[in-house]
Amino acid sequence: MATIKDVAKLAGVSISTISRVLNAPDKVSKDKRERVLRAIEQLKYHPNALARGLIHKKTKTLGILIPDISNYYYAEMFRGMEDAAQEFGHNIIICNTDKDKQRMISALRSMKEKQIDGFVFTSEPVYPDYYDIFNQLGLPVVLASTQSLEYAIPSVKIDDEQAGFDAAQYLIDCGHRRIAMISGPHLDPIAGMSRLQGFMRAMRTNELDFDSARCVEFGNYRYDDGYAAMERLWDKNPELTAVFAASDEMALGAIYFLYRSGVRVPDEVSILGMDNTRIACMSLPRLTTVAQPIYEIGYKAVRTLQEVLDGAGPATLRTYLSHQIVARDTVKNVNGEIF
Amino acid sequence: MATIKDVAKLAGVSISTISRVLNAPDKVSKDKRERVLRAIEQLKYHPNALARGLIHKKTKTLGILIPDISNYYYAEMFRGMEDAAQEFGHNIIICNTDKDKQRMISALRSMKEKQIDGFVFTSEPVYPDYYDIFNQLGLPVVLASTQSLEYAIPSVKIDDEQAGFDAAQYLIDCGHRRIAMISGPHLDPIAGMSRLQGFMRAMRTNELDFDSARCVEFGNYRYDDGYAAMERLWDKNPELTAVFAASDEMALGAIYFLYRSGVRVPDEVSILGMDNTRIACMSLPRLTTVAQPIYEIGYKAVRTLQEVLDGAGPATLRTYLSHQIVARDTVKNVNGEIF
Repeated sequence: MATIKDVAKLAGVSISTISRVLNAPDKVSKDKRERVLRAIEQLKYHPNALARGLIHKKTKTLGILIPDISNYYYAEMFRGMEDAAQEFGHNIIICNTDKDKQRMISALRSMKEKQIDGFVFTSEPVYPDYYDIFNQLGLPVVLASTQSLEYAIPSVKIDDEQAGFDAAQYLIDCGHRRIAMISGPHLDPIAGMSRLQGFMRAMRTNELDFDSARCVEFGNYRYDDGYAAMERLWDKNPELTAVFAASDEMALGAIYFLYRSGVRVPDEVSILGMDNTRIACMSLPRLTTVAQPIYEIGYKAVRTLQEVLDGAGPATLRTYLSHQIVARDTVKNVNGEIF
Repeated sequence: MATIKDVAKLAGVSISTISRVLNAPDKVSKDKRERVLRAIEQLKYHPNALARGLIHKKTKTLGILIPDISNYYYAEMFRGMEDAAQEFGHNIIICNTDKDKQRMISALRSMKEKQIDGFVFTSEPVYPDYYDIFNQLGLPVVLASTQSLEYAIPSVKIDDEQAGFDAAQYLIDCGHRRIAMISGPHLDPIAGMSRLQGFMRAMRTNELDFDSARCVEFGNYRYDDGYAAMERLWDKNPELTAVFAASDEMALGAIYFLYRSGVRVPDEVSILGMDNTRIACMSLPRLTTVAQPIYEIGYKAVRTLQEVLDGAGPATLRTYLSHQIVARDTVKNVNGEIF
């Protein structure tokens, strides 16, 4: 196999000239550049990416940390990341963290060893010790579907508080008054507490009674969590007419509980989901949901990382993409009905 | 930052001794080994993975080629791959190919440049020109959810022909006689034609009439394909009582068509899916389906690749994991009913 030395010999230039042709062709005279390119072609020389990484400290490889690729939300977001990476000529090294700190640290250490150019960190809050780890690594980082208000780290997500508000307002506009929420976990300040706060703000704004002990249950975004949370809600609050669930999976779990209990959706209880993963339109009845631009969040996160790598810095530090409510078949408009 | 030279100086050994301690410690005397390890600890020396890759031609990085991570089937399989890779100390570079040849070639070239140790190729047939490309790369490869009968490449999948047979036999055992199939594409010899062949073998074995022009429609495994295929089937064959769809998504699409047409599932028409992705138990009614061990296929594919990398070769060239039918709520037992 041809080496860079063979190319230098054939082209009659120094090794550093070849390196310049490969990495900063504008700095080389046209004549020399053409001689080098001809020699490269003739010898079928393939630059070694590892060697290039050692010399130029750029490997064109990005790290992606996500909680769990088998979660549909992350699968769709990751597809956006990979498409952007491909567009900018990067490879991706991916690791599932399961939101486990040790697993994350070990992944980052290994990615650092492989000299990734930067990484995207998904969905978890940036705790102070995480921030210390990021700093020690000294690598560019962008947050996807999470953000940090304490630290100046670029991020891409929706406005979760506003999404929670809009969800409640939508149910209120459809005539519902006795509304409950299946929220994400207490310990999740991003998609958990923010959405709940927005939801409660809408209830206050509309001067509706809202007893959080009776009207809020919690789950970890999964189908089974939604089933169990709906069971608890129904037990203490059987007069409710609408429920907002903080993920599509929890919404489907809630629907299944109601179905097994003989309660009709949406005739007796309306269910509003969140995310608009592809399951939202595969379920029956088809789920009305607050749509996040999931693919775009992933795509935009990698594009923002590219902006940082290009040295220009991100155009915006905290990017908020817009959400919207997609009306399908699980929320009933009860305006005009008598209760 | 400490370099290998610093370690050599402090330990009073040559650089090649340090390299041996890191990579083949058994070949170094206990005394020297301990001196080197002490020096490494004292200097907080971190071996550079890229440099090590250049020297030892091993990067502990695997490539994964899958059609589309936003497809739930691949998302679940990829999770198995990543868990196995983590267990064996590998990182993963992943690329979505969209079953596009140019995209695959470009991904493989880039992975080769980064000196991956080997790769897993998922779900597509190994066409002769693909085999040539694999050969040129000279890297170990394992096939996941696909296989090659022509070439000696290790593979991990279920027995798709038998799965098609078992699907039809299950519907027959439930008393159905007028059965149709929504198959994968003509051009897919793996999950498409094999399942259809198994399905037709069961019909022959049971001496049931089967007019493939009236009883088979095709789709590309997606929800919308299932909806459209069911519409065509129903148009030409409204007396059928059961349908086997070659993916869960197509089964759900078929159910939605029937729902919109006022046909009750499973009271009037039974639907049997295939895969047992997580959506199978999130839909309503919950889908009866032929379960593939999706996670295990991914896990086992990477484990087989590890066996090849260890130099022992794979324990088995073509591994078939077992499938099973998971009975939920979309197939009705009509034995004893009068038609």
